[in-house]
Amino acid sequence: MAVNLPEPDPKSLHPVPGVELGVAMAGVRKPGRKDLLVMRLAPGTQVAAVFTRNRFCAAPVVVSKQNLFKKKKIRALVVNTGNANAGTGDGGVKRAVQVCEALADLIGCESAAILPFSTGVIMEPLPAERIVAALPRALQDRSDWFSAAQAIMTTDTVPKAASRKVRLSRGDAVITGIAKGAGMIRPDMATMLGFIATDAGVAQKDLKNILRAAAGCSFNSITVDGDTSTNDSFILMATGRGPSASSGKDLSKIQAAITEVAQALAQAIVRDGEGATKFVTVRVERGRTENECRRVAYAIAHSPLVKTAFFASDPNLGRILAAIGNAGIAGLEPSKVDLYIDEVAVVTGGGRNPAYREEQGLAAMKKPEFLVRTVLNRGKAGATVWTCDLSFDYVKINAEYRT
Amino acid sequence: MAVNLPEPDPKSLHPVPGVELGVAMAGVRKPGRKDLLVMRLAPGTQVAAVFTRNRFCAAPVVVSKQNLFKKKKIRALVVNTGNANAGTGDGGVKRAVQVCEALADLIGCESAAILPFSTGVIMEPLPAERIVAALPRALQDRSDWFSAAQAIMTTDTVPKAASRKVRLSRGDAVITGIAKGAGMIRPDMATMLGFIATDAGVAQKDLKNILRAAAGCSFNSITVDGDTSTNDSFILMATGRGPSASSGKDLSKIQAAITEVAQALAQAIVRDGEGATKFVTVRVERGRTENECRRVAYAIAHSPLVKTAFFASDPNLGRILAAIGNAGIAGLEPSKVDLYIDEVAVVTGGGRNPAYREEQGLAAMKKPEFLVRTVLNRGKAGATVWTCDLSFDYVKINAEYRT
Repeated sequence: MAVNLPEPDPKSLHPVPGVELGVAMAGVRKPGRKDLLVMRLAPGTQVAAVFTRNRFCAAPVVVSKQNLFKKKKIRALVVNTGNANAGTGDGGVKRAVQVCEALADLIGCESAAILPFSTGVIMEPLPAERIVAALPRALQDRSDWFSAAQAIMTTDTVPKAASRKVRLSRGDAVITGIAKGAGMIRPDMATMLGFIATDAGVAQKDLKNILRAAAGCSFNSITVDGDTSTNDSFILMATGRGPSASSGKDLSKIQAAITEVAQALAQAIVRDGEGATKFVTVRVERGRTENECRRVAYAIAHSPLVKTAFFASDPNLGRILAAIGNAGIAGLEPSKVDLYIDEVAVVTGGGRNPAYREEQGLAAMKKPEFLVRTVLNRGKAGATVWTCDLSFDYVKINAEYRT
Repeated sequence: MAVNLPEPDPKSLHPVPGVELGVAMAGVRKPGRKDLLVMRLAPGTQVAAVFTRNRFCAAPVVVSKQNLFKKKKIRALVVNTGNANAGTGDGGVKRAVQVCEALADLIGCESAAILPFSTGVIMEPLPAERIVAALPRALQDRSDWFSAAQAIMTTDTVPKAASRKVRLSRGDAVITGIAKGAGMIRPDMATMLGFIATDAGVAQKDLKNILRAAAGCSFNSITVDGDTSTNDSFILMATGRGPSASSGKDLSKIQAAITEVAQALAQAIVRDGEGATKFVTVRVERGRTENECRRVAYAIAHSPLVKTAFFASDPNLGRILAAIGNAGIAGLEPSKVDLYIDEVAVVTGGGRNPAYREEQGLAAMKKPEFLVRTVLNRGKAGATVWTCDLSFDYVKINAEYRT
C-alpha cells in the first residue's frame, strides 16, 4: 500500500526524442508479465551513471561499468526483472555479456555499446536464453515511458515515472525518468534502478556533474530498510536531439529539472517502500557539517524502534532521542537538542518540552506524511532524508518473497 | 516466545557471600509487580562497570558514572523497571540522586556510594517518590537471585540468570549474574542491564580488565535490532568474602568463569529477543582483523532482509552476500568468500556452490538454532556475534509497547 502515490498519468510523461522504448515478456521468472525493457539511444547520446557500492555488486553492474569505462558511445540499455544476476560469479558475467552480444547483433553495434541491468532474486543463474529469445519482440515493440516503468517493477506496487519540461535559451527540453525499487533501499542506492533521459544536448563532463548532484539529494537520500543492494544503478542520458545546454544558466536550469525528476522518483520509491504506511521526511538542522546531519538523519531513519513507532503512530519520541544519541557524533551535547514533529515542539534543550501534550504528537503522527525535524544547535549545516515506517507487511513481504 | 531458553532453576543459582538482595513492588509504572531491586554489598566490595555509549545516556547512567569516578566504595545498587529516566534532562538527574540519597540514609552511607539503574519507557519523569517509599520494604526483603532476575524484567519473557563455581588455589569461588533485555540490543549494550557478582577477592585493576574482556565477547557481541539504548550497564562486583584471586592462574580461571556467565546472560537476551523465533550464531573467519570480522558479522546480523529470511526459514542466501558486500570492507574480494549454514557449503568462491541443493539450506534454517559461517579467506582473524530473526511479533511488540 503506497503512501500518497497515485499511478503517474501516462499523458504527463513527455516522450524524449532520441530514446526508443520497447518491452516484451521474456518469462525470466514467471510467464505472462512484461519483464524486459530495451531503451535504444540515438547516435551521439551522452550517458553518465552511478552504481551501488556493494562489494558483491551484480554481474550486470560489472559489465555496465566496464562498458562505460571503455568510453564507447552507448547505443542501448537492456533491463530485465525477475532475476538480479547477482552472487552468480563468472558465469553471471558471461550471461550478462551474452545478452549484450545478442542485442548488439540485432541493432548493429559493438557489444560494449550496450549497458545491461538486472533486478530480482539474487544468486540464481540468469536465464539468458529466454532474454535473448525475447529481444527481437522488444525491438519491434514501441512503448511509452509508462509501459517502460511497468516493465521494470518487482515488489513495486505502483509504476514510478516523472517528467518535466524546461525552457532553455535555445528552446524547450524535456526530461523524463523511470525508477523501480521498494525494499533494500538506502544511501548508496539499493534494489533501485533509475533511468532519466533528456533530449537536451549536454557535454559528458557537465552530465556527470549534474548526475552526482542530483543523485546526492535524491536516490542517495532515501532509506527503506538500510540494506544496499547489489544492483543499484542510476543512469542519466542526454540525446542531444533537442536544444543544447552549455551556458551556465542553461546548465543550472536543466540540473534543477533533472534533480526534480530524480527527487520525485526517489520519493516515489519510499512512498512505495515495502509495507510502508507512512512517508516521513527526516530533517536535521544546525549541525556542524552536512555529513554529521546526514548521519543523525540516517540514525533516526534506520532505527527499527523509531520505525515501528511511526507505524503505530505512537509518539514514543524518546526512541528518536536514543537514535540521535547513537549516531556517533563526537561532542554532541544532548542538552542543546530540539526536536519537532511537524510544528509540534516535542523536545527542547534535550528534555521533554514542558508545554508538549502527547495528543499533539499523536495527531501529527497519525497523518500519512509528517516531518521529523531535529535541531542540533551547534552549526549551520543541514540534511534531509526520506524514509517510511516498519510495518507487519514489511516482514510479510520479505519473509514470503520467494515462497 | 524465547528460543530454547528455559527458566533458570533457582537452585542452580549460588548465593554470593557479601551480596544481599531485596525486591519490592514500587508501582513505578503499574501496580502489583516487583519493579524494584536493591543489592547491598559488603564493605570492601570492588566494583567495575561499563556503560552505554549513547550520547543521550540516561540520568542514572550519568549518576552511576559520577559516583564510580569519585572512587567511593560502592555499598549498594538500586534498580527500577518501568521507567528509564532517560531524555529527562536535569530533572532526571535530580530524581536519580533523590533515590540514591534516600537509600544512603536508610543504610547509613554516603549518597555517592549508591549506583542507580533504571529501565523502561524513555522521556517520562521518574516517579522517584514511589521508589523512595518502597525502599524500606526492599531492604527488609531477603530474595534470591532468581527473584532478583524477575524484578528487573521489562519486555523479557524469561528471567535471565546464570551461575558458576570455580576452584581457585585458596578454595572455591562462586559467580552469579542476572541480566535483562529483549530489544534495543546491539554492540555497545542496549536496554540491557547485567549484574555479575563473585565472592572472590579481586583487585580493582584486575576486575576492570576482566570486565572489559568479558563484555567484549558477551554483551558487546549480541544484537537484536541494532538499536543501542540509553541505559545499558554491565556491573561486575567482587565482594572478597570468598577466596582471593591474585595469581595469574587464579585470575585466568575466574575470568573464564565470569566470561561464561556473561556469555550465558548475553545469549539469553538474544534467545529472548523481541519476537525471536531463531537463535543465530554469526561467525566470520579468516579476515584480516578482528574488527573487520565484527563489521561483517554485524552487517549480516543487522540486515532486515537477512533477518526476515531467517524468520521465514528461507535460504534466500544472496541476501547474506549482499549484507557482506555492504560491510564496507576495503579490498574485499567477493570471489574469495565462502559461506556455510551449519555444515552446508552454500557459497564457494563468491558464487553458489554447484553441489548445493536448496533443500539442504532449508533443512538447516528450519532449526531454531543454526550457525551462519562466512570465510573471507584473506587473513587469520575471526569474530562471533549472536542474533535473532525479525518476525511479525517484533513489529507487534514495538508498535504496541505503550498502547
